[in-house]
Amino acid sequence: MKRPVRISVTGAAGSISYSLLFRIASGDMLGKDQPVILQLIDLPNTMQALHGISMELEDCAFELLHSIQLFDNAKDGFQGAHYAILLGARPRGPGMERKDLLQVNAEIFTVVGRAINDYANRDVKVLVVGNPANTNCLIASRNAPDLSPTQFTALTRLDFNRLRGAVALQTGANSKDIKNAIIWGNHSTTQVPDLYHCKLHKQPALFQMDESWYKNECIQNVQKRGSQILNARGQSSAASAAKAIIDHMRDWALGTQNEDWVSMGIVSDGSYGIAKGIVYSFPVFCDYGRYEIVQGLNINEFIQEKMSLSEQELLDEKTEVERLLPKETELGHNNLSISLRSELIGEYSET
Amino acid sequence: MKRPVRISVTGAAGSISYSLLFRIASGDMLGKDQPVILQLIDLPNTMQALHGISMELEDCAFELLHSIQLFDNAKDGFQGAHYAILLGARPRGPGMERKDLLQVNAEIFTVVGRAINDYANRDVKVLVVGNPANTNCLIASRNAPDLSPTQFTALTRLDFNRLRGAVALQTGANSKDIKNAIIWGNHSTTQVPDLYHCKLHKQPALFQMDESWYKNECIQNVQKRGSQILNARGQSSAASAAKAIIDHMRDWALGTQNEDWVSMGIVSDGSYGIAKGIVYSFPVFCDYGRYEIVQGLNINEFIQEKMSLSEQELLDEKTEVERLLPKETELGHNNLSISLRSELIGEYSET
Repeated sequence: MKRPVRISVTGAAGSISYSLLFRIASGDMLGKDQPVILQLIDLPNTMQALHGISMELEDCAFELLHSIQLFDNAKDGFQGAHYAILLGARPRGPGMERKDLLQVNAEIFTVVGRAINDYANRDVKVLVVGNPANTNCLIASRNAPDLSPTQFTALTRLDFNRLRGAVALQTGANSKDIKNAIIWGNHSTTQVPDLYHCKLHKQPALFQMDESWYKNECIQNVQKRGSQILNARGQSSAASAAKAIIDHMRDWALGTQNEDWVSMGIVSDGSYGIAKGIVYSFPVFCDYGRYEIVQGLNINEFIQEKMSLSEQELLDEKTEVERLLPKETELGHNNLSISLRSELIGEYSET
Repeated sequence: MKRPVRISVTGAAGSISYSLLFRIASGDMLGKDQPVILQLIDLPNTMQALHGISMELEDCAFELLHSIQLFDNAKDGFQGAHYAILLGARPRGPGMERKDLLQVNAEIFTVVGRAINDYANRDVKVLVVGNPANTNCLIASRNAPDLSPTQFTALTRLDFNRLRGAVALQTGANSKDIKNAIIWGNHSTTQVPDLYHCKLHKQPALFQMDESWYKNECIQNVQKRGSQILNARGQSSAASAAKAIIDHMRDWALGTQNEDWVSMGIVSDGSYGIAKGIVYSFPVFCDYGRYEIVQGLNINEFIQEKMSLSEQELLDEKTEVERLLPKETELGHNNLSISLRSELIGEYSET
């Protein structure tokens, strides 16, 4: 049996976490041979509820669950973490402007980024889920100058899965036969679901469906899916978000399969003309702990225009939180095109 | 790829279901090569929420999820079902006596039993989770005269997992090294967590722990674990119940492993002197769709006394709902000791 790895989860008393933790402990994320230590972090007033979740985890008698630790602070919670899943964020309250939301979350992710920088394992892989995820991810990364920005990612896998689910439903195909879908940009309504490179049964998908369905229905449906589900359930997506988190982390850690790629929000290295240094969703191949942007795709005008809009939104968000961003360090950000695979260096230094 | 099987779930808009459905669709229950059709059943006023859950299932792009159907009635919902997971039950309301609770649920499970009898696949495997689970299971079975009583089971796997989890925590052992635990009796506070046959690292477990911990703490903790979790979380166990359901159904369908046994609530055939015809938790071996009570275990006085108390509770519950029980048919109940493996006959008649 392998040595256990430490997985820190913030917002651990929340509903996404409740759908997520049991799947991590069952081996769905890192494989059936990888024991895990869960380091659950949430606010002090949630400790009783968190204890209840921890009891339920014990009650499952998971063979791979080495131990569970509960924390009400980031410093202790990220100690030695190999994986950090950041669910905790402040949701938009009544009368709150988008600007206020960005600010209040920027403060949270500044603290979290610093704690990860100071206490996590040097090879930690970070996934930001709490919204606004891309900009929260940027803030966490910039507050972790001792780590590579490539170690920080934002979740757009839920959008990616939604896009593939929509194509499956529309065409009747099994999702395993749908490859090379893309989500570009921000995890927001400006995101760009792109089917121009998508293959259905190894042939171009758009040749096998009504392109007007894609342009006039599919894109908007994927962009607005979150609020549709909120309306139907009366609660935000939780189980599907947890599934996307499992997928994102599994592929990152263990590699993408069968010549398919996935979409991840990562710090832009300038690929496809996207401004360097914002966290933008790109198509990536993953290979045992590393990822690489898929290069050389032809982008048509229809997609290019949308990609630029989403890029602009992220640049605007960055401006809003600028004062909280430490200066870019030479190590971390000037050499982004090199450092995208830099965690390779760290692969062999695992303690 | 195999042909898809139909899995009907009642109470599908509830919280156990929300933890369960996504794991079924990911293949955790019936294996990574078994496509599934989910037939989700709940009350008419939950259809919007159920639609939201169904959207989230689509958004996961599960390769094994053939299709999802929503139903507000039992007749259509159990059509052709190969597996029926009965989560839906009326919880105890304010001022409600245990007797009232038994009655109102007896009525629900009469309707459900008849619908399963009339519309499900002839080889359907039924698991009752909604409380009082054992007696609800009895009622459903007795209202399904065309099916074998062996096709109806009640969940005591959560208690079984809790017992193993408690031993793991107490001894520091991995749960995979803990075998042959038993839960006898009713899924209630009279249940009997039995460690007298339990092996830890292939040696008797009780020789490796303080027996007074088992007798004075462990038993009560397992019996009362449900209410402890309710107190901590402010909500009933859901994710751990879902995990137990997955375990119960997987082992029943695919077989118990590594010379271990599990505990299931099943219609008693008189083994260990337990009154025939009540639904009682026994240790069972499972082998690809069949189960068989583990025979020949020595029962000491300490356990025997508790087993009889739990038996008496179930006999009392049966008396309370007697008027709703159709007469036992010759086919179903006089030949129980034979019919315990009778679904073998049906194994080859699957349509």
